[in-house]
Amino acid sequence: MKTGVALLGCGTVGAAVAQMLLNEKEHLLRRTGQSLELRRVLVRDIHKRRDGIPKSLLTAAPADIWRDESIHVVVELIGGLEPAQSLIFEALAAGKRVVTANKHLLATHGTKIFQAAARAGSCVGFEASCGGAIPIVMALTRGLIANDIDRLIGIVNGTCNYILTQMNAGNQTYVQALAGAQAAGFAEADPAMDVSGMDSAHKLAVLAALAFGIDVPAEKIDVTGIDSLQDTDLRYGRELGYACKLLAIAEKFQNGISLRVHPAFLPVRHLLANVNGSFNAIDVYGHASGQTIYYGRGAGGRPTAGAVIADIVDAATGTAELLFRHSPLLTRRRKATLLPTRKILCRQYLRMNALDRPGVMHRITGVLGRNGISLAAVAQHESRAGDYVPLVVMTHAARDGAVDRAVAQIDRLACVRGRTARIRVMDPGA
Amino acid sequence: MKTGVALLGCGTVGAAVAQMLLNEKEHLLRRTGQSLELRRVLVRDIHKRRDGIPKSLLTAAPADIWRDESIHVVVELIGGLEPAQSLIFEALAAGKRVVTANKHLLATHGTKIFQAAARAGSCVGFEASCGGAIPIVMALTRGLIANDIDRLIGIVNGTCNYILTQMNAGNQTYVQALAGAQAAGFAEADPAMDVSGMDSAHKLAVLAALAFGIDVPAEKIDVTGIDSLQDTDLRYGRELGYACKLLAIAEKFQNGISLRVHPAFLPVRHLLANVNGSFNAIDVYGHASGQTIYYGRGAGGRPTAGAVIADIVDAATGTAELLFRHSPLLTRRRKATLLPTRKILCRQYLRMNALDRPGVMHRITGVLGRNGISLAAVAQHESRAGDYVPLVVMTHAARDGAVDRAVAQIDRLACVRGRTARIRVMDPGA
Repeated sequence: MKTGVALLGCGTVGAAVAQMLLNEKEHLLRRTGQSLELRRVLVRDIHKRRDGIPKSLLTAAPADIWRDESIHVVVELIGGLEPAQSLIFEALAAGKRVVTANKHLLATHGTKIFQAAARAGSCVGFEASCGGAIPIVMALTRGLIANDIDRLIGIVNGTCNYILTQMNAGNQTYVQALAGAQAAGFAEADPAMDVSGMDSAHKLAVLAALAFGIDVPAEKIDVTGIDSLQDTDLRYGRELGYACKLLAIAEKFQNGISLRVHPAFLPVRHLLANVNGSFNAIDVYGHASGQTIYYGRGAGGRPTAGAVIADIVDAATGTAELLFRHSPLLTRRRKATLLPTRKILCRQYLRMNALDRPGVMHRITGVLGRNGISLAAVAQHESRAGDYVPLVVMTHAARDGAVDRAVAQIDRLACVRGRTARIRVMDPGA
Repeated sequence: MKTGVALLGCGTVGAAVAQMLLNEKEHLLRRTGQSLELRRVLVRDIHKRRDGIPKSLLTAAPADIWRDESIHVVVELIGGLEPAQSLIFEALAAGKRVVTANKHLLATHGTKIFQAAARAGSCVGFEASCGGAIPIVMALTRGLIANDIDRLIGIVNGTCNYILTQMNAGNQTYVQALAGAQAAGFAEADPAMDVSGMDSAHKLAVLAALAFGIDVPAEKIDVTGIDSLQDTDLRYGRELGYACKLLAIAEKFQNGISLRVHPAFLPVRHLLANVNGSFNAIDVYGHASGQTIYYGRGAGGRPTAGAVIADIVDAATGTAELLFRHSPLLTRRRKATLLPTRKILCRQYLRMNALDRPGVMHRITGVLGRNGISLAAVAQHESRAGDYVPLVVMTHAARDGAVDRAVAQIDRLACVRGRTARIRVMDPGA
């Protein structure tokens, strides 16, 4: 039996999915045992030329898809909240199985959508929503299912990782690295969703919900982007043996779960520190498995299309439906107690511009000490110009809120100019 | 409904599975939605004490399991060819679903067993047969299913990787590192299966069959172990920027598929070069996905038990049965044309003990040149003692068979003492 497929949207990923379905049919049948047939592509403008996609497949009317009984699987690749959400509900109501790559929508309304799918006896495949080609959704919902997940750390935004890879290598400011990423096609003209950390937060919401079986309020994820990072700090960090990465972190503690996105220093020996360019990787600690890591391309037309087609196959065989019938991680999620980031313990890198005078180091370390922060290393660098010198401090594990307070106090000292730069350190086994 | 489980065998992995099923029942129900009930454990000696497993569950009679209708899933953890194979066929004949961690059996009779399972309307879960906690079977059979796999490179034996990690770090001979691995519990008293490369070859047979959908004749895999490696060469390799790993390689070429296990130098920047200790990792290149890597613990009771239980859950929900009904990779495998290793092109590291006399370098490079092998780098190291000096050559990409011939000719030269040491180089993007 043939499985009829319709695409909603025909951007980079949509076009790649269409081309694979149209041009690699024999290959896909040989690998999957499924005969997949692209039957419709929903677009806004059916007159716009789309390479390799026959005009007869294009439609601007969703109803053409809903009422076509030869279409079994609907793939939403529009992105954003609306009209994507309404179209998914309409597809489910029309008896279709759904596949989506929409992390923003799933981060915001995932549980509701999954429950609607389960009630309809249907399913929503969403492998492509996080980590592109990396089968991380499958790892969390199936491969690691016997595990209590203790911690998940992801590099889940290729744009940010590309920029930080350039900055870590030295000699590029954030602005230069961003421009380079845009020129190389790794960053959009408006990179705000990426560099602000919001895209990573959406993916973290999707992944943490699976890791812990919880309903994650995405808006409560603590997010810091990479847009205020200074190349100076990445250079000092490198000298100390660290690489800076934008990490999406979900961690289980006795008194709650911490969900946060922020730049962090990783020891250069950590495998995640060696994930470079636009690649993504997700590090997952299970109580039985121990550490596992999943690495691959986090974006791009064909890598993501491969994940979308894997989901179409699971929808076609009924595998996805079984998952939605059985898995509590999707439809019977618990409420989570979130732990504010200020309660997290971690080492921190701090850099102040301090007046080059006797007693200044003493005053700064005094503030840190009064806030219960002890120092692992201090280095005063030579001044490039003027009376102010960069003072770099690496703390021992300290309560994040205590560092907030100390930094605020330091920034009010007369002997310090500008704001203290601060980057958390993620220790491998911690 | 409860799913009844029986274990065949109660070694390290069996005991860990039993303990998770017995002690973490609530946790497993909450994560998987399945109520799993350990009902029988087949052992040779029912009088031997087994921590935490009630004596009432032990039996020495397989028939107790076959005729118990409350047992749905049978987990084979005996290992080896017999009686494991017969028991699996008996279990399938008795209408049970099967899970196994037995790479040796699957490498040898996998296709036959999978076809029997499909004919019986049943399934065989085998995630734990390769890569322990790493969900690599799932990645190949589902996550990457839309991909034509071009290449798979695995570090799939934790014992060898532990030994090589010690040797790469310097200062340990093979014999010392092996003794250390045995003391640390990472190598068995008889390490032959591991250090000879045979265990890696079994896993490669299982993985390559999935990657390419082919019936792999395991005995045709070209295997070189780590037992003749010399620490000198790992030290010289490190100076050149390489780490030595035992790699299981499956590569598709236009004229056939190459399957081989051998020690190889990897550039230290390659992620696989940074997989250390007893960890495993598998690097898979798909035509759509590009490079993906899967990393985790390749052995050990609890990591492997987690994979076994994931398979039990897939057997319980019917997911595994669907896979066996649909996937050509398991039951409709094609015959493969294997490419002899002598036809492979790769760079090679060679070390000779050459007489420290004028003209010797000329004679050796002459042999290489006449075999069409061109040199990328040559270094003559200072002699430690006597008239012979180590001469290290790094070749450009050369036909493996040509290097075979050249090495044989060099070893017959009067100006060379002993046998030429040789390690292939695996280039990242090659």
